[in-house]
Amino acid sequence: MIKKSIDTKAPINDIIASRWSGVAYDSEKTVSQEQLLSIMEAGRWAPSCFGDQPWRFIVCNKSENTEAWQNLYDCLAEGNQPWCANAPVLIAACHDTQFSLNDKPNPWGAYDTGAASVSMCLQATDLGLMTHQMAGFSADLIQEKFSVPERYLPIAVMTIGYQDSEENIPDAFNERELAPRKRNPLGENFFMGKWG
Amino acid sequence: MIKKSIDTKAPINDIIASRWSGVAYDSEKTVSQEQLLSIMEAGRWAPSCFGDQPWRFIVCNKSENTEAWQNLYDCLAEGNQPWCANAPVLIAACHDTQFSLNDKPNPWGAYDTGAASVSMCLQATDLGLMTHQMAGFSADLIQEKFSVPERYLPIAVMTIGYQDSEENIPDAFNERELAPRKRNPLGENFFMGKWG
Repeated sequence: MIKKSIDTKAPINDIIASRWSGVAYDSEKTVSQEQLLSIMEAGRWAPSCFGDQPWRFIVCNKSENTEAWQNLYDCLAEGNQPWCANAPVLIAACHDTQFSLNDKPNPWGAYDTGAASVSMCLQATDLGLMTHQMAGFSADLIQEKFSVPERYLPIAVMTIGYQDSEENIPDAFNERELAPRKRNPLGENFFMGKWG
Repeated sequence: MIKKSIDTKAPINDIIASRWSGVAYDSEKTVSQEQLLSIMEAGRWAPSCFGDQPWRFIVCNKSENTEAWQNLYDCLAEGNQPWCANAPVLIAACHDTQFSLNDKPNPWGAYDTGAASVSMCLQATDLGLMTHQMAGFSADLIQEKFSVPERYLPIAVMTIGYQDSEENIPDAFNERELAPRKRNPLGENFFMGKWG
């Protein structure tokens, strides 16, 4: 995918530096089961509180599970559907709200699932794939369509696929896809020894 | 650090495969500011809902901010203090409970902060360092000692440092440090096209 430059005060690993959330997917290029296995394994080995692994991912590969893909697509917010239509893989990330060990509330369910999800994104980046997580979807609809048990909450939907070649990016996505990446200055979120 | 073998159905990136949460730190080896910058930058470039970057990290490097390190150490659960005593860096991960944009509740604060934290762990792994996140600490005490504003919640404390050489690992940590890594079988947490 397109390499975007980022400002850093010290060098970072290439897959962490190269991951960014594009919207222009190539609908012709599929993602293989082997690639998805690598991506899922990357999530599987993420750390979690008490090793509870509160994440549950529903992986919908359009070329393998067309109906499931369509079901998940139908849960997306209208604003996200145009660009998601070309993504060959949609994944619903859900988290357990209770510890599997003792059914008590797990306050780290979302935190740990965020770690698993980004590990999957980084693995996908390593495979030359583009990922994009979104919050614009109906969690209720996912729970209904996929019969997700009540204790599990859908918290994000992830797209995976190959980025379209630069000359094929539709005009509608062009500005968003080519915009520079931005973050707060380091000192706004990272404090040395004391708050702020 | 010690390389542990893991079972995977497909290959994964080396820094994702190599990261694990040890307890036997080498108290003699410090972590440099340059290394911490790389680690913070890795977190800084993590994805977040609406790009809100809800994470706030209080970084306490014992060799630079001894008092802050001690303050954070004092917030840890008794069970964690023995092994954390040797970790040269302690970091409190906090998340904003509201969007910075409009002060509305942010349901992705913990999820996004989990992504930033594991990105920092992976960057540390890439630098040859060991990390370990824990939930055993007093969030109230962190808020009090570091004057954390009420809208931010401490959700994890991370240790960073070099692992002790294998022959120096204290008996008390030996079993835990050398135990094989374990995860659920892939199919328990990753579903293809339908729940379960």
